[in-house]
Amino acid sequence: MTTYWCEHAWLPGGLLAGVLVDATDTITAVSTVDAAPAGAERLSGVVLPGFANAHSHAFHRALRGRTHADGGTFWTWRTAMYRLAARLDPDRYLTLARAVYAEMAVAGVTCVGEFHYVHHPAGGGRYADPNAMGEALRQAAADAGIRMTLLDTCYLAGGIDTPIAPEQARFSDGSVAAWADRIAGQRDAPHARVGAAIHSVRAVPRADLAGAVEAAGARPLHVHLSEQPAENEACAAAYGRTPTELLHEAGALTPRTTAVHATHLSTQDIKLLGGAHTGVCFCPTTEADLADGIGPARELVDAGAPLSLGSDQHAVVDPLLEARALEHGERLRTGERGRFGPRELVEALTSAGHAALGWPGGLLAPGAPADLVAVRVDSVRTAGCRPDQVVLAATAADVHTVVAGGRVVARDGRHERLGAVGPLLASAIEELWA
Amino acid sequence: MTTYWCEHAWLPGGLLAGVLVDATDTITAVSTVDAAPAGAERLSGVVLPGFANAHSHAFHRALRGRTHADGGTFWTWRTAMYRLAARLDPDRYLTLARAVYAEMAVAGVTCVGEFHYVHHPAGGGRYADPNAMGEALRQAAADAGIRMTLLDTCYLAGGIDTPIAPEQARFSDGSVAAWADRIAGQRDAPHARVGAAIHSVRAVPRADLAGAVEAAGARPLHVHLSEQPAENEACAAAYGRTPTELLHEAGALTPRTTAVHATHLSTQDIKLLGGAHTGVCFCPTTEADLADGIGPARELVDAGAPLSLGSDQHAVVDPLLEARALEHGERLRTGERGRFGPRELVEALTSAGHAALGWPGGLLAPGAPADLVAVRVDSVRTAGCRPDQVVLAATAADVHTVVAGGRVVARDGRHERLGAVGPLLASAIEELWA
Repeated sequence: MTTYWCEHAWLPGGLLAGVLVDATDTITAVSTVDAAPAGAERLSGVVLPGFANAHSHAFHRALRGRTHADGGTFWTWRTAMYRLAARLDPDRYLTLARAVYAEMAVAGVTCVGEFHYVHHPAGGGRYADPNAMGEALRQAAADAGIRMTLLDTCYLAGGIDTPIAPEQARFSDGSVAAWADRIAGQRDAPHARVGAAIHSVRAVPRADLAGAVEAAGARPLHVHLSEQPAENEACAAAYGRTPTELLHEAGALTPRTTAVHATHLSTQDIKLLGGAHTGVCFCPTTEADLADGIGPARELVDAGAPLSLGSDQHAVVDPLLEARALEHGERLRTGERGRFGPRELVEALTSAGHAALGWPGGLLAPGAPADLVAVRVDSVRTAGCRPDQVVLAATAADVHTVVAGGRVVARDGRHERLGAVGPLLASAIEELWA
Repeated sequence: MTTYWCEHAWLPGGLLAGVLVDATDTITAVSTVDAAPAGAERLSGVVLPGFANAHSHAFHRALRGRTHADGGTFWTWRTAMYRLAARLDPDRYLTLARAVYAEMAVAGVTCVGEFHYVHHPAGGGRYADPNAMGEALRQAAADAGIRMTLLDTCYLAGGIDTPIAPEQARFSDGSVAAWADRIAGQRDAPHARVGAAIHSVRAVPRADLAGAVEAAGARPLHVHLSEQPAENEACAAAYGRTPTELLHEAGALTPRTTAVHATHLSTQDIKLLGGAHTGVCFCPTTEADLADGIGPARELVDAGAPLSLGSDQHAVVDPLLEARALEHGERLRTGERGRFGPRELVEALTSAGHAALGWPGGLLAPGAPADLVAVRVDSVRTAGCRPDQVVLAATAADVHTVVAGGRVVARDGRHERLGAVGPLLASAIEELWA
């Protein structure tokens, strides 16, 4: 057992100073004491629960700093992303994803939701192990010392009433049944759970949606929703419905479901999502980088939808910047401040994110996984802040110690087992583009 | 003379690898050579020209992480800001501003525009030296090793047709003539130039605008413009004009003028500003934090207005994040990517900012001040990026060496003369709120 003494700790009831956390792989006791007792590991600053990154496409990290030369839109960016996807194989993906998950770990992420759709060899066919790519991702998370939910994604069409394009062939299993068969071969592991995803109403035809929902069963089910106006327009033209309405009809909106982005919604869409207590996962830095827009986060939460956060395409991997960007988006679109207070932002980063991925945790309380993220309050960024508002000033550069499942995985921006993460990323990305 | 060898350097013609920069306090020669010669200081990564922070209210830094508890708007935030302003005196302001400018220096800022309006003792009256507060700011910049333009601000009214409130009394000289007399007592110094500002059309009545413009003479003249819709509404109600139109009528729109924020503009406003080649200074992190909105940056530049950047109220002091937020704002409001490419973002951070403050510089070329900002390309944030796109991925945490006027002022986030900046900020801010 390890005892951590936290200068300040973010407990379910609020921020307290001088908190002792006893932990094995889970938290066994939480108490308060003014000074660190002998033998305790001292964590300065503010200790938060581990962050859940509820939406990740690990390979997109290799596009960071490579798509800003020529203007364009979400859709031209997607073309670049397809070129990158074509270069992946299980070995290369393991190397890249290990580095990306290590980047997440040093930023305080202790649990990731990997929305995984690059299933098969480029051009189609099958690997000897049809889950080889997913296994590479599970291994990468293990190597980085974080937990994951592998949201294995059903992807059957190139668009509404559009067949799969050659560059999308490796994403598709051909049918809902074949997708369901393949994921049936996956088993939960101590660090990795099996989840499901419907890529979007673009990539799964209306006739297949209910079957995909059924095949997902009790697993967490994620779906990209209304990220771009063009999805809504195509859906309205083909089906006379919004994507949210289409998912509702197919029985896809349940409390186990998380709608990712949820950017361009009608009032009725918000009611449907909130009324079903379907989660929403916002990815604010991606939604800015990809020119998606600012979604109605506050309205969704007020309607009943739990809100989590994701770094998605990883133009930025910084949960604290993600939370700040969420609140900044609200301020920009409404002219009001404090649309989400620090408490709600921390909840989105932690407990709501874990719930969206089907894991317990994201809180500092007995029985929860021992995930702790210690944030400096004496850096140039955070000096002078109230500790209970530091989430609006800190960045991942202020995360000094990360404990996941009772083990220290990162200190001072360096991964404990993997070392400096920048060089890991650089070599993995250079190899991919070589 | 010092010779710097830059792994990559951002020259006026583009990014080059292997660049030698010879410098005294100014750059004397620029050439290319593959490897660092003996005796040269090696600067790894991408070396950019020094950043100009074209809009600063140094004391606002003491509000960071202290205004997020209770919702509100720009106007409730302003009330908190007035409470803080009431606590300043020349000694406390020197201590605080020195720490804030040191924070800027470690982030790559080598020149700051301080929009200064806390002139007089709280409640009114005069200091023995009526420029004592401005002198504190000039001294703070000298201590931090950066150049400044002190934009001494004319502030005469509490709002349109509204007298000065008690908490604003220390901002006002009582008349344009008294303001002009006071700033006539200031002299340029090697590190500090005298500039002028009109606080806004709220704080300077219509009848005084032309006089203030005349008194500013050939100095750089800055003005807050249409940051909030309420300013436009009050201006329309009182004068039947937009704030931009009012400034235009007063002769305030010249190439020496910089309009700060320029958030809520009409098409005609954009034409007036662009046609006059009046500069615009966007402060994207402030405009998000204060719920101002997203202004028409691209349209202003296309109309002829040079664009600079500022950190304003210092909720964030990170020029690279400011540049990224500018482009993110464009993407969010238009659905298009690459509205400003890396080259234009660097220009806004460097040469355009210096021009807005009446200084030469902001470029790596012979004759310019020897200001160099070296940015890591091997961090978790920047690994894998193209060096010429790093401005969209790096943050101030990636700035490893800052040279201002030929002297190294910061290395690895630590100020060369002042040491660790976090503790300086913490003690200055705690003293103010005590």
